[in-house]
Amino acid sequence: MQDQYLEYLTRFLRIPSISTQDEHLEDMSQARTFLKDVFEEMGFDVQMLPAKRHSAVFASKIINPENPTVLIYGHYDVQPADPLEQWHTSPFEPVIQNNFIYARGATDNKGQIMLNIMAVKTFLEENKTLNFKFIVEGEEEIGSISVADLAQKYSKDLFACDYLIVSDSEMPHLGQPAIDISLRGLVYTEIVVTAAQQDLHSGQFGGVAENPANALAHVIAKLKDDKNHVHIPNFYDDVVTLTAEEKDDYQKAEISEKELADEGKLLGVGGGEEKYSLNERRWSQPTLDVNGIVSGYTGEGSKTIIPAKASAKISMRLVPNQDPEKIYKDFCDFVKSITSQNVQIEIINHSNALPYKSPTDHPVFETMKKALKKSFGKNAIFQGVGGSIGFVPVLANAIHVPVLMVGFGLPTDNTHSPNEHFSLENYFKGIKAMLEFYKHVRI
Amino acid sequence: MQDQYLEYLTRFLRIPSISTQDEHLEDMSQARTFLKDVFEEMGFDVQMLPAKRHSAVFASKIINPENPTVLIYGHYDVQPADPLEQWHTSPFEPVIQNNFIYARGATDNKGQIMLNIMAVKTFLEENKTLNFKFIVEGEEEIGSISVADLAQKYSKDLFACDYLIVSDSEMPHLGQPAIDISLRGLVYTEIVVTAAQQDLHSGQFGGVAENPANALAHVIAKLKDDKNHVHIPNFYDDVVTLTAEEKDDYQKAEISEKELADEGKLLGVGGGEEKYSLNERRWSQPTLDVNGIVSGYTGEGSKTIIPAKASAKISMRLVPNQDPEKIYKDFCDFVKSITSQNVQIEIINHSNALPYKSPTDHPVFETMKKALKKSFGKNAIFQGVGGSIGFVPVLANAIHVPVLMVGFGLPTDNTHSPNEHFSLENYFKGIKAMLEFYKHVRI
Repeated sequence: MQDQYLEYLTRFLRIPSISTQDEHLEDMSQARTFLKDVFEEMGFDVQMLPAKRHSAVFASKIINPENPTVLIYGHYDVQPADPLEQWHTSPFEPVIQNNFIYARGATDNKGQIMLNIMAVKTFLEENKTLNFKFIVEGEEEIGSISVADLAQKYSKDLFACDYLIVSDSEMPHLGQPAIDISLRGLVYTEIVVTAAQQDLHSGQFGGVAENPANALAHVIAKLKDDKNHVHIPNFYDDVVTLTAEEKDDYQKAEISEKELADEGKLLGVGGGEEKYSLNERRWSQPTLDVNGIVSGYTGEGSKTIIPAKASAKISMRLVPNQDPEKIYKDFCDFVKSITSQNVQIEIINHSNALPYKSPTDHPVFETMKKALKKSFGKNAIFQGVGGSIGFVPVLANAIHVPVLMVGFGLPTDNTHSPNEHFSLENYFKGIKAMLEFYKHVRI
Repeated sequence: MQDQYLEYLTRFLRIPSISTQDEHLEDMSQARTFLKDVFEEMGFDVQMLPAKRHSAVFASKIINPENPTVLIYGHYDVQPADPLEQWHTSPFEPVIQNNFIYARGATDNKGQIMLNIMAVKTFLEENKTLNFKFIVEGEEEIGSISVADLAQKYSKDLFACDYLIVSDSEMPHLGQPAIDISLRGLVYTEIVVTAAQQDLHSGQFGGVAENPANALAHVIAKLKDDKNHVHIPNFYDDVVTLTAEEKDDYQKAEISEKELADEGKLLGVGGGEEKYSLNERRWSQPTLDVNGIVSGYTGEGSKTIIPAKASAKISMRLVPNQDPEKIYKDFCDFVKSITSQNVQIEIINHSNALPYKSPTDHPVFETMKKALKKSFGKNAIFQGVGGSIGFVPVLANAIHVPVLMVGFGLPTDNTHSPNEHFSLENYFKGIKAMLEFYKHVRI
């Protein structure tokens, strides 16, 4: 059985389905055909859902409309493999070493979606108690640009289900299963401050010309103080407090400052409010970060100018139940109120994403925990995700069902980097866990 | 006589003596030869003083060692002429229109140094009461890189004099003669803040990784508050208070916010402390400006990273008697004390320049005022210069004589820009004024 599971994964990993490069359009199509064949072999009806750049694969097998229906999300596209010279093996020729399979997309997301396909395939060979649907998109690595359209178009029919399963995240470490119970949202902005029509001589105009870079620094310093508290009015109003159980789980997953610094190659841990634990700071507290800033002369040596213009990209990671649109409005009002009156200011909203919080009191979470324990031999913990998965909150809001985010990747898997790999222990135990879940889930 | 004055200037302006471009090395040499010939025609001894890139021309005529000696400073190099397509005439084929002569270097500095040469030439044809020396450098437009060396080497012999004349600045407007009584100095620094070895995912690390761009914004905001007061300890300690007479003169030269905004194409006047007049803010108060800042992603659209590094070029214009080295030390100590402990910080000192203040109680200033009034028909005012002229304070400190900075350019002359031009009214009146001065000066 494991040979068969591995055979499917290996075939999938051989296809260089890189969504961002036009030279791989044919490979993207091949990946869709591969999935279509696999699903049809399993007796599924398959259709390609047109999207902005790469169609999504939708597959369904409705055994009995009276039975509960599971929808599973994943993506068939992968990141580019470069820098190629840093790979120890060829990125699209999967190699197994020390029980890890090395290939681009091994963890993100081919290993994890194939794990789910194999679990359903095995389950259906003996059971008829559930209906299954898969939505496997081809645009995740280019920002899930068609997600909102697809969710709006198909939420009432194709995507109708009783719960959604997503495996596109990580366990804290090998042997420790976890369920992700939250995603952070995002408001990504840019502030452009203009003070003059051209750069000025700093001798001639120093003291009488407003400096847009100094003015922008004042704005940034007022947005978040040096204790990392954000001062946008009402910013924290809708932040949901963690339950005692969630706090307890986060505590179980807590890592030391040293481990965190090593993971990110940080010179020191910072950036969040010290009254919260590290996991609370990255999973359940919002942030405000400058992602980029530029003004004036940035070349070698010196140039004595007062810049005409300064701009900064500033984004906020949001947490349940912060509303990106409301936060953006408060951000704009506040920025305008704290900016020097002598400059012009323009604010751009590059993108928004909703935060998400799983309804952990729903009985499927308990069932999933039991299934994970049975397969991994250890109690699963609840953890959060610091980033955003665009598809999840959009679809969850459209179809109003619980989302079970169960990740089988590891923080050390080199996702998006050279030598990406996926644990075969997790692959096989993951299949077994999902199989257990389907056998026992009752809605 | 005016024809002869014009003939010399026109010949000088035809030489494309651009100091920053190697393809003009021959032209630089030609400009030196031209000056040598002119000075020798006037009976001067001429020598070329070796410098880092372009020799300086030194000329002297000692009629009687018992007589007072005047040293005159200027430069024979010019800025590049590009963008060429914006010139209405050819930059090195001088053209006269509406009593202005158009050419690169017309005001800066060929017109102004030739004005001084012509005044001395005419004076010496009838008078033997003064000795004259000229130092005409070829590196002013590349930062007067050999000035300190030259001043140190020759201050005791070649440059020995009773006062120094410099014409490399401006009158406030046509018809209003002025004497510049101060120059601002400079401390130019760069702060580099490092928080991690590489850019980080803002979802994964937002809230636990220190953001160097946010940290740098806090530093900048603390260096100068939003009322434009600098908070570096002891920063204002050595700032000399203006005398009542100087205040009065600055007031006479005061321009409106509207005029200033038009001059710099500013959206609004700012950047200095409101308790000072605009002229005090640009001439006799120090500044602190960000000249450039860069961190993280600055391309189109968005990228969700926490930058590894952020850097800012920050310079301070200094006023008498602030000491660049002392200010730099206080700056470093203060910056280190206000920077987050979770980042690494490096501070670079790109360049320093001393401020300068003329001893206006010296009798030559009164003589110069009378000479300017006689020629221009209007009382000359004292004004300050917001920028720095590297040569002046270095030489003034080395030779300990008063420096008379008398500018005949205009703010509208397009210095360093296309269509540079110099007022022939100022050229001829300037020659007459200097002639008057030499006739009446008594030391």
